[in-house]
Amino acid sequence: MSGPRTPELALGGQGASSTGSQDEDTADGIQSSHRMLSFSDALLSIIATVMILPVTHTEISPEQEFDKSVQKLLATRIAVYLMTFLIVTVAWAAHTRLFQVVGKIDDTLALLNLACMMSITFLPFTALIVVYAFHRPHLLSPQIERSAHRALYRQHILGIVLRGPALCLAAAGFSLFFYPVSYLLMATVIFLPYVSKVAGWCRARLVGPREPPAHSLEIFTFDLHEPLSKERVEAFSDGVYAIVATLLILDIWNLRTSEARPFSEDNVPDSEDVKAKFHGSLVAALGASGPHFLAYFGSFATVGLLWFAHHSLFLHIRKATQPMGLLNTLSLAFVGGLPLAYQQTSAFARRPHDELESVRVSCAIIFFASIFQFAIWTTALLQEGETLQPSVRFGGQEHAFMFAKLTLYPGASLLAFACTCVLSSFSTAIFHAMQIAVPFTFLLLRLLVRLALAGLRGLRGLRGPARPTHTRPVPGATDDAQSPLLPAPC
Amino acid sequence: MSGPRTPELALGGQGASSTGSQDEDTADGIQSSHRMLSFSDALLSIIATVMILPVTHTEISPEQEFDKSVQKLLATRIAVYLMTFLIVTVAWAAHTRLFQVVGKIDDTLALLNLACMMSITFLPFTALIVVYAFHRPHLLSPQIERSAHRALYRQHILGIVLRGPALCLAAAGFSLFFYPVSYLLMATVIFLPYVSKVAGWCRARLVGPREPPAHSLEIFTFDLHEPLSKERVEAFSDGVYAIVATLLILDIWNLRTSEARPFSEDNVPDSEDVKAKFHGSLVAALGASGPHFLAYFGSFATVGLLWFAHHSLFLHIRKATQPMGLLNTLSLAFVGGLPLAYQQTSAFARRPHDELESVRVSCAIIFFASIFQFAIWTTALLQEGETLQPSVRFGGQEHAFMFAKLTLYPGASLLAFACTCVLSSFSTAIFHAMQIAVPFTFLLLRLLVRLALAGLRGLRGLRGPARPTHTRPVPGATDDAQSPLLPAPC
Repeated sequence: MSGPRTPELALGGQGASSTGSQDEDTADGIQSSHRMLSFSDALLSIIATVMILPVTHTEISPEQEFDKSVQKLLATRIAVYLMTFLIVTVAWAAHTRLFQVVGKIDDTLALLNLACMMSITFLPFTALIVVYAFHRPHLLSPQIERSAHRALYRQHILGIVLRGPALCLAAAGFSLFFYPVSYLLMATVIFLPYVSKVAGWCRARLVGPREPPAHSLEIFTFDLHEPLSKERVEAFSDGVYAIVATLLILDIWNLRTSEARPFSEDNVPDSEDVKAKFHGSLVAALGASGPHFLAYFGSFATVGLLWFAHHSLFLHIRKATQPMGLLNTLSLAFVGGLPLAYQQTSAFARRPHDELESVRVSCAIIFFASIFQFAIWTTALLQEGETLQPSVRFGGQEHAFMFAKLTLYPGASLLAFACTCVLSSFSTAIFHAMQIAVPFTFLLLRLLVRLALAGLRGLRGLRGPARPTHTRPVPGATDDAQSPLLPAPC
Repeated sequence: MSGPRTPELALGGQGASSTGSQDEDTADGIQSSHRMLSFSDALLSIIATVMILPVTHTEISPEQEFDKSVQKLLATRIAVYLMTFLIVTVAWAAHTRLFQVVGKIDDTLALLNLACMMSITFLPFTALIVVYAFHRPHLLSPQIERSAHRALYRQHILGIVLRGPALCLAAAGFSLFFYPVSYLLMATVIFLPYVSKVAGWCRARLVGPREPPAHSLEIFTFDLHEPLSKERVEAFSDGVYAIVATLLILDIWNLRTSEARPFSEDNVPDSEDVKAKFHGSLVAALGASGPHFLAYFGSFATVGLLWFAHHSLFLHIRKATQPMGLLNTLSLAFVGGLPLAYQQTSAFARRPHDELESVRVSCAIIFFASIFQFAIWTTALLQEGETLQPSVRFGGQEHAFMFAKLTLYPGASLLAFACTCVLSSFSTAIFHAMQIAVPFTFLLLRLLVRLALAGLRGLRGLRGPARPTHTRPVPGATDDAQSPLLPAPC
């Protein structure tokens, strides 16, 4: 959603392109682009996440063992999944940049955007969009429409949106005869923004800044070094979490059919399964395939709570910088791996001797998905003045609570992993206990944090601002807390 | 998205619950609910749509013929799909109602909502949400928080959110020993709003209105007879279109693996397939599986353009009434069937002798998906004063253009269907020609409509307001068209 969904967006610079376009006429079909952008976000996030399916279905056939060769195959698939996920994310980021420049759309532009979505490498159509939008300047964001350097902008944004696809094309070419180069090129695509950032920094050091400052400040509005628009980051993340949660349902259904007979025309069980799920006769459904549903609910709870942590985090983030965007992408990539975790844990019924590996893989996936969320927050804390709401900064009233929220899953998964090393025979029990315990911890978290803070307040004399994450809580100051949601003028 | 994404929402009554909650404090974790709602919309739409997969996979096994028995099985599956889709939509509608009452959320409520999503029959948790929200009145929408009849509201909304799940549970019970009754009950669930509307109307006729008018006006804000919140309808529809578009990609991948060996551990082709798609070497990919990709692009274009028509339509809709919501649901249900159309057309390579049935099924699906969109518009035109922007009302400058947009797909699919009846041997060619021709028609549509209107203006003397859809066009009146986007005080 690029439309202003919260007041700070309406005021903040990110929403400018869309807020500027909303009191426009719809005659001649000039429209605000927010819904098209939300649709694109959903599409791209789903496409990126669906690529985990080859990995999960590696495990699906019942007769197959979890031996070294499969692990190797699995590893390569996971590498491919991660790379494709990251590349789709790069394409999405380029799309975000593009529509920070193109403020409004008309029908032609909407159709071109659909063509973009269809051929996921944006190569031909993003160029067309840029050309078309600059051909009809009233579609551009007002700031650029009014500017004198439009041609410069045009070549700049063309470079931004074409670099990635061009490299991908080159990689595809190389992949036909020499793989390593194509992998290298794809890695370049993924880390291009950071490469270009460094390159720009070096250029600035050697030959000085390319533009006069006042002008480069204009360019800043769609430069790759500019923070991503927060609401589109949220939309993309929501899409990933939603499709991951749905893949769990898909997997239940796949498992049941693949156990009976792989995709024969007679997989009536799943339509009954569907009915069972939708009529609420959960007892019968659980009776039919108990471990699957236990694993499903466990994994769904994990996805849901990771989304919940992400939601609480971005509720307090004012704008997402480049590094935060990268960390968010990595976190999402591991979230996309959760169907794999589900697959593994639900496979216990068939392959009890693989419990240990499965539980460890699951714990690792959950740990990385959540630790990257925590990393987003710590990165934000480094520039807390511009990135965070006051209430979660060092010493803010929500600071300790946010800290607890974001450390819960890394801690729990790490603990579970450690326990499996000690009590390897109870690994499944440990894992399910973790999955069941964490939600309740979340429910009681505020209470627990309050207790911890009360205890720590007694010891405040001993612990100074050296431990800022637990000091100076201001519980229950709800009256003067209107301010946190309102953005500082940035 | 329950947040105000467009000005008319910020002003209109629908967005009131969320706009009221946005300048609130985040201390004690009281949050605006817009992102949680968008996430729920995405999740529910994906879950509803994914239920088409059992139907599509009926066709997947290559050795199987498209004979009568399969058609029968397919028919029953489609019935099940439609019913589950409609039931999920009912659950989504209840969720919308609920969060028209609950304006703000805190962490507990967010977690309860996640539990709702997990157990898709909302039975236990919606009740919990209602109880909790009324236990903490500051979470309620301000209007209800201030009201004196809170207990009444509570029982009213409890009734609304519990009726459906209770009936589903009863249906599940019956399904264990006697099917027809459960189908009947599920039908009741789907059409409950309309039943209750009629019942309420009758009651009002017999014993007079239950509430004093001033009070029933308050209840109206979350009554089932109140229009759905337009932005949540849009979000739900976007989710459906996005997941359908993605299922097409999934199907490519499924087809390839199922042709090789169904879900064995060695489906490396798809990871290559993925690479092919993501590196842009589309030529190689097409060479590998030509008809699949042709059918994929055709179906993707269809999904995208149906979304485009939906987007243009709702851009001009001010609020969505109950019948429009039902028609939108039916349209979406058929959109969800498009992967089936894709499955059929892409199966030509394997079963050429089924071309005719396949093409006809595809044309029928596209026709119904688009004709229900058209029905939304005609229904809106019946109350155009409150439902439509002035520019698309009878005689509005966009009216003829919108008419053309919404009649394009019904006309094209109907034409294709008719052609297949005449030239049955060229059915595939006809279908693909239709799929290729329509996008270009969309691109040239504005031009074509202008030409048609120019021609009609010459004949205006002959045709009076009896043919309002083509009369009194006001082309190029872009200055005074600011007003259409601003809502009339309703």
